[in-house]
Amino acid sequence: MKIYLAGPDVFLDSFGATIFAAKKKLCALYGYVGISPMDGQLDTSGLAPFEQGVSIYAANIGHMRVCDAMIANMTPFRGISMDAGTAFEMGFMAAAGKAVLGYSNVPQSYAARAEAYYSGGRHEALDAYSAGTAIESFEMADNLMMAGAVHASGFEVVRNSVARGQELVALEGFEACLRQLHKRR
Amino acid sequence: MKIYLAGPDVFLDSFGATIFAAKKKLCALYGYVGISPMDGQLDTSGLAPFEQGVSIYAANIGHMRVCDAMIANMTPFRGISMDAGTAFEMGFMAAAGKAVLGYSNVPQSYAARAEAYYSGGRHEALDAYSAGTAIESFEMADNLMMAGAVHASGFEVVRNSVARGQELVALEGFEACLRQLHKRR
Repeated sequence: MKIYLAGPDVFLDSFGATIFAAKKKLCALYGYVGISPMDGQLDTSGLAPFEQGVSIYAANIGHMRVCDAMIANMTPFRGISMDAGTAFEMGFMAAAGKAVLGYSNVPQSYAARAEAYYSGGRHEALDAYSAGTAIESFEMADNLMMAGAVHASGFEVVRNSVARGQELVALEGFEACLRQLHKRR
Repeated sequence: MKIYLAGPDVFLDSFGATIFAAKKKLCALYGYVGISPMDGQLDTSGLAPFEQGVSIYAANIGHMRVCDAMIANMTPFRGISMDAGTAFEMGFMAAAGKAVLGYSNVPQSYAARAEAYYSGGRHEALDAYSAGTAIESFEMADNLMMAGAVHASGFEVVRNSVARGQELVALEGFEACLRQLHKRR
């Protein structure tokens, strides 16, 4: 069984090489094969920036198509929500009928983070125009589409508290997803 | 042809009733039927918050399944990226082989917004732990997965500058998507 390793991990040092190696090792412990977005030999040199992005898109789609499941790093990234590219990938895998799992290393609910965003006036510099919009309060880790997809797959989003500064790299939540998957198979 | 009207519009007053009515009217002008996430009679009263979210998820998935295309409001929402739930829906529609279109009423590239996020120190209160992560620079409106999906569908993300305060409600970009779709069919 192949598991797509989705998350903003790709934006870490060396495109997340260290963390993807650690995730693959954990996958192997459970008898799975981890597939990272960075796998394969993608040469984008000589391409214009937009075309580079298009090539990476096609490569990621190819990786997802060969996987049977995904474990998404849903930790908030550059805002109060998870990385939007990872959210896209959760939707892609859900539509393809693959198992969708995810973990967040920031345990608060989406509603709590959204309320802090407005009460702290943080929206003023980012999207002042969203002031007054309704905050969904479903006691979920992020927007209901992602939490709903994990639930529809028969799993639960893992919400973990980790040491400060370790939010993007701590792997306990990732391993808890592996255990959920292993228990069901 | 049915078009799914995706976006944070659902968080506007009365769940976006006014804007969805306007979008449906525009769709009809081009011979299309707009389907809003709020369509149908979903009764979530009496359900626990999490189960309400799960019901709305199922309803949205049902709406997407009957649509042939989507037009996503990709305007940044509560951060520098678009609404994560809408990103999920773009991935869902891409995997289902539907036409994926989108518009943003904030024309800057994702890279420009991410740079301002860090240089303005805005990450400190939101996700200080993401400091130093790589910023993708593909001259795209948002993360490459969403821009890549629109491109793979044969369309272009519409990036429009609108009057201040109108970012979540201006419809010129939406109509430009309708024109793109109409031209190709």
